Amino acid sequence: MQLLKDRILKDGVVLKGNILKVDSFLNHQMDPGLMAAIGEEFARRFAGEPITKILTIEASGIAPALFAGYFLKVPVIFAKKTQSSNQDASTYAAPVHSYTRGTDNYIRVSSRYLSSDDHILIIDDFLAHGEALLGLSDLVRQAGATLAGAGIVIEKGFQDGGRRVRAKGIRVESLAIIQDMAEGRVEFAPK
Amino acid sequence: MQLLKDRILKDGVVLKGNILKVDSFLNHQMDPGLMAAIGEEFARRFAGEPITKILTIEASGIAPALFAGYFLKVPVIFAKKTQSSNQDASTYAAPVHSYTRGTDNYIRVSSRYLSSDDHILIIDDFLAHGEALLGLSDLVRQAGATLAGAGIVIEKGFQDGGRRVRAKGIRVESLAIIQDMAEGRVEFAPK
Repeated sequence: MQLLKDRILKDGVVLKGNILKVDSFLNHQMDPGLMAAIGEEFARRFAGEPITKILTIEASGIAPALFAGYFLKVPVIFAKKTQSSNQDASTYAAPVHSYTRGTDNYIRVSSRYLSSDDHILIIDDFLAHGEALLGLSDLVRQAGATLAGAGIVIEKGFQDGGRRVRAKGIRVESLAIIQDMAEGRVEFAPK
Repeated sequence: MQLLKDRILKDGVVLKGNILKVDSFLNHQMDPGLMAAIGEEFARRFAGEPITKILTIEASGIAPALFAGYFLKVPVIFAKKTQSSNQDASTYAAPVHSYTRGTDNYIRVSSRYLSSDDHILIIDDFLAHGEALLGLSDLVRQAGATLAGAGIVIEKGFQDGGRRVRAKGIRVESLAIIQDMAEGRVEFAPK
């Protein structure tokens, strides 16, 4: 998606440790116009699938997922990273390993909002090691729902998440795939 | 806002402890069409103000804030409840007391994204004791920015947050004000 790639080149900042800082438009400050364009592109790519719901994870997956749901006209659920006091007792839960923090955290969705009749599209902002995406797909599996695929805003193609997830037969549509940024400069995969 | 009130009456569930569960359309599963209508209504109510940015708090403030930003054509920032590893060193931070958990937690915004030139509209999903809203308005004050007001999806009018915030001279626009739900039934304030 050229609009997104241009924005990454213009406003993304490469930090040590293969970190791409895009908090000026994606995951702290958000550009709603860009988020809408991203949501519309996901809707276009998955238009052939009978999607009934979108599943994402708080907090930075919400913006692209919400607009994808807006254009596909389906509800959007965000998995929670912490247990809240008035959460349903019955939840689907899956562990997600954080490489940055070195810890495992559970993500949860109320079991009322995923069913075996659902065709789920997962949306997230980043795909790196694939932990969040595999955790989300495990929630879909627990519910007996069908996973239509995953829409990713930015995939770090030089890390192994994309390979791990696609090896499970999951369709992944990434709007920008970064091939390399070792030299402090973002290079996208050709395609 | 009648569309929202109708939805609260239809799908909201009143639990013990003055809890209104709206996680089927607002803060776990989200209805993107309703979120868009809410965002458009906030944009309409604050159309006379020279808003430059919207400020909200993760995670459930993001959806209504994002659509308000979409219609007002301004960026949306969400304050973070946890420190992330690649967050800016320079942040504005304010404590927010949680009555449910009995703890104080800091919310943070990178100081790069709020400046003294900004006219800020704060958006949040709930106003109860007012802690989150007062914390967000403190971030605006620290940045030397102008606070245009606050847009709230659901105000619990029987708790003291609305009074506390309005007593500080802050304009608060709540789309649904609940007057009472002690009997397990939602009653809206007349207006």
